[in-house]
Amino acid sequence: PVPPGVLPLCRRPPAWGRGTQQLPSLPLAPCRAFSNSKILVELDESSGVATMKFKSPPVNSLSLDFLTEFCISLEKLENDRACRGVIFTSAVPKIFSSGLDITEMCGKSTEHYAEFWRAVQEMWLRVYGSNMVTVAAVNGSSPAGGCLVALSCDYRIMVENPKFSIGLNEAQLGIVAPFWFKDTFVNVVGHRVAERSLQLGSLLPAPEAHKFGLVDELVPEEKLLEKAAAVMAQWLALPDHARQLTKSMMRKAVLDRLIAHREEDIQNFISFVSKESIQKSLRMYMEMLKRKKS
Amino acid sequence: PVPPGVLPLCRRPPAWGRGTQQLPSLPLAPCRAFSNSKILVELDESSGVATMKFKSPPVNSLSLDFLTEFCISLEKLENDRACRGVIFTSAVPKIFSSGLDITEMCGKSTEHYAEFWRAVQEMWLRVYGSNMVTVAAVNGSSPAGGCLVALSCDYRIMVENPKFSIGLNEAQLGIVAPFWFKDTFVNVVGHRVAERSLQLGSLLPAPEAHKFGLVDELVPEEKLLEKAAAVMAQWLALPDHARQLTKSMMRKAVLDRLIAHREEDIQNFISFVSKESIQKSLRMYMEMLKRKKS
Amino acid sequence: PVPPGVLPLCRRPPAWGRGTQQLPSLPLAPCRAFSNSKILVELDESSGVATMKFKSPPVNSLSLDFLTEFCISLEKLENDRACRGVIFTSAVPKIFSSGLDITEMCGKSTEHYAEFWRAVQEMWLRVYGSNMVTVAAVNGSSPAGGCLVALSCDYRIMVENPKFSIGLNEAQLGIVAPFWFKDTFVNVVGHRVAERSLQLGSLLPAPEAHKFGLVDELVPEEKLLEKAAAVMAQWLALPDHARQLTKSMMRKAVLDRLIAHREEDIQNFISFVSKESIQKSLRMYMEMLKRKKS
Repeated sequence: PVPPGVLPLCRRPPAWGRGTQQLPSLPLAPCRAFSNSKILVELDESSGVATMKFKSPPVNSLSLDFLTEFCISLEKLENDRACRGVIFTSAVPKIFSSGLDITEMCGKSTEHYAEFWRAVQEMWLRVYGSNMVTVAAVNGSSPAGGCLVALSCDYRIMVENPKFSIGLNEAQLGIVAPFWFKDTFVNVVGHRVAERSLQLGSLLPAPEAHKFGLVDELVPEEKLLEKAAAVMAQWLALPDHARQLTKSMMRKAVLDRLIAHREEDIQNFISFVSKESIQKSLRMYMEMLKRKKS
Repeated sequence: PVPPGVLPLCRRPPAWGRGTQQLPSLPLAPCRAFSNSKILVELDESSGVATMKFKSPPVNSLSLDFLTEFCISLEKLENDRACRGVIFTSAVPKIFSSGLDITEMCGKSTEHYAEFWRAVQEMWLRVYGSNMVTVAAVNGSSPAGGCLVALSCDYRIMVENPKFSIGLNEAQLGIVAPFWFKDTFVNVVGHRVAERSLQLGSLLPAPEAHKFGLVDELVPEEKLLEKAAAVMAQWLALPDHARQLTKSMMRKAVLDRLIAHREEDIQNFISFVSKESIQKSLRMYMEMLKRKKS
Repeated sequence: PVPPGVLPLCRRPPAWGRGTQQLPSLPLAPCRAFSNSKILVELDESSGVATMKFKSPPVNSLSLDFLTEFCISLEKLENDRACRGVIFTSAVPKIFSSGLDITEMCGKSTEHYAEFWRAVQEMWLRVYGSNMVTVAAVNGSSPAGGCLVALSCDYRIMVENPKFSIGLNEAQLGIVAPFWFKDTFVNVVGHRVAERSLQLGSLLPAPEAHKFGLVDELVPEEKLLEKAAAVMAQWLALPDHARQLTKSMMRKAVLDRLIAHREEDIQNFISFVSKESIQKSLRMYMEMLKRKKS
């Protein structure tokens, strides 16, 4: 379940937190499909399964806008009794999500860094702590924060294309994955693989990712959504209440750790990202990406 | 070792706890074989190995009577210097143990629920914390509490028959495995497999159970006890004292966690099982089992 | 990073701890190669990689002298800006290291036991907490403390010869691996494998060690150092700072646990090793080794 203490998003007033259950600006009827500028959501009411498609080209980077829309969409589904599970996938070819948007970390104000990092935390708290069944249908590469989204789901299916890779590659950019990225990773792949992969900033091609347990299953691209639906049906065959309490029992310790250190974690991010050396290496990385594109 | 603070069973007065070493009603000579209504125990004094055979048809369910006899038998062996290891197996075809007896949880008094749950805890504390080498020779299906008995041993051998399955399937009944079931499971199969299996209430056929590490080895049915004896001999080749201290070092944290929260865990069970919704789903489950039989 | 609170070695006065950075008797120029009576160190300044070769025949046992020289050599490299990674290997055929030197634990004074155990702790704290990339090139058998050295590295490569075995086999000698050996082991192979291997005191032939994740990779003997260099180059391609912080994040909890209980751990060792029963079994073990040799 979404843990107690999760703050409402501070970006879209008025906040409609879970505690209050007041949804002033929303229709009372359950939603069938809705879309905002970066995410397309389709809810199949007969199955109770929603699909969230990331459509923020070129690479579905997790900008502040994206994260805000992501959290709003997810909360909308979480509060919708017709929705019991959600599949995350990409509407952009070859990429699931490229992870945190580096432009949000470059040359901005302290306040901006704080707002951005709080939104990153919020996304993880909502996905990792979701009451719904969450399945990642990874249809493209998924580095860093993109990998975190997949790791935070209940189950990960990836297209078997070895050109698609996935991993927490922060170390390659000279930055360090936060402790809660690490905790989530260790829970999925165990300590030894997590330690090595994090130190090397490994991006694993789909077959290797499967071998190490980073993804649970590989399928041909054309079978991905069908397979995701089949997996979802298997999970939804269980009574929600017992499944939710079980999930909470498994994840509570790691969720609580961020909740207890949330402000400290924001301050750490700010002081880290504000360093001139880090700013410089992020600028260099962005330059490299631009040159690559052209 | 059996952790300090383990309360004596409250069902058979006078209690003959480990601390006191007073066994008023027992013969002083070491036992060779003894039996009670639900469990047959044979001790081979030349090897120091006892075999505990569950013989409580139709499905070796863990009733209050069964648990009480189980704990008394195990304590008897634990205190017998001629006994260094114990093999658990079933005398009932096709089933190792079906787990907790649902009739003990249906339409009974609060006092009964408390007594029953304390006996379940006691069984786990004694097996998981046993000073003896413990080997599960799983010769049939082993859901829920039956799986817990196997998980609590030092080593698990299962008949390779894919019709036999094993797992903590509580979620399928709409109930949640207690935290110490979960801790034991995570210690055996790791976090990811435990999280998925517990949420899905998975019962794995023997070959899959082996693949995921839930059992250590598969053998043909006719070789099971021979193999269990061979494994036991390998473990007993080690000096007891070092092995016992090592086992305690590995398991102490998880044992201590239940010991510290034992009464709270009993209260949780009572308030959970007393809910009308849970009573209803347990009654429905029992109806289904009865229809299946006839 | 080497954790705060690591005491300087008390054996070579004056102590040249990391805190002080005073290296009174050392040349100021970075070392290319140095040697002491038990360890040969070669530093390739072009790659930034040092190789520490154990040359203490017949079996590279971890005597107080060996440990002291090991820690001094390692600290020298740790403080040398030209050195970013270190490969541990053996100059003695067929053996990587036989582990703790039993003669240091037999018939000595309490003070000696304390000094010896502090040196064992120091070695582990320095290797497990090293800022450098550490690779074990295991070219021979590696029981007990020898295995610990390998487990404490970032990566383990072993010669594929099944005659070479590795493991924490303390239980076979009637002794118990300390909790920090266990913590390190669990981090590498997980709880279930660690629990079984520690209780059985298993020495695994190289192919099995690889299967259980105790070593990361097997190679033919003649390719060992080449492979170690290739692996090292891969790790050194990452920026040091992010890699070091990541490593620290992964290992801090386990390092801190020994640091917090260091004196208690020494007292435990002393009272254990001072027991007549333990002294007797160690003497018997040494006798057996002597008979084997002749």
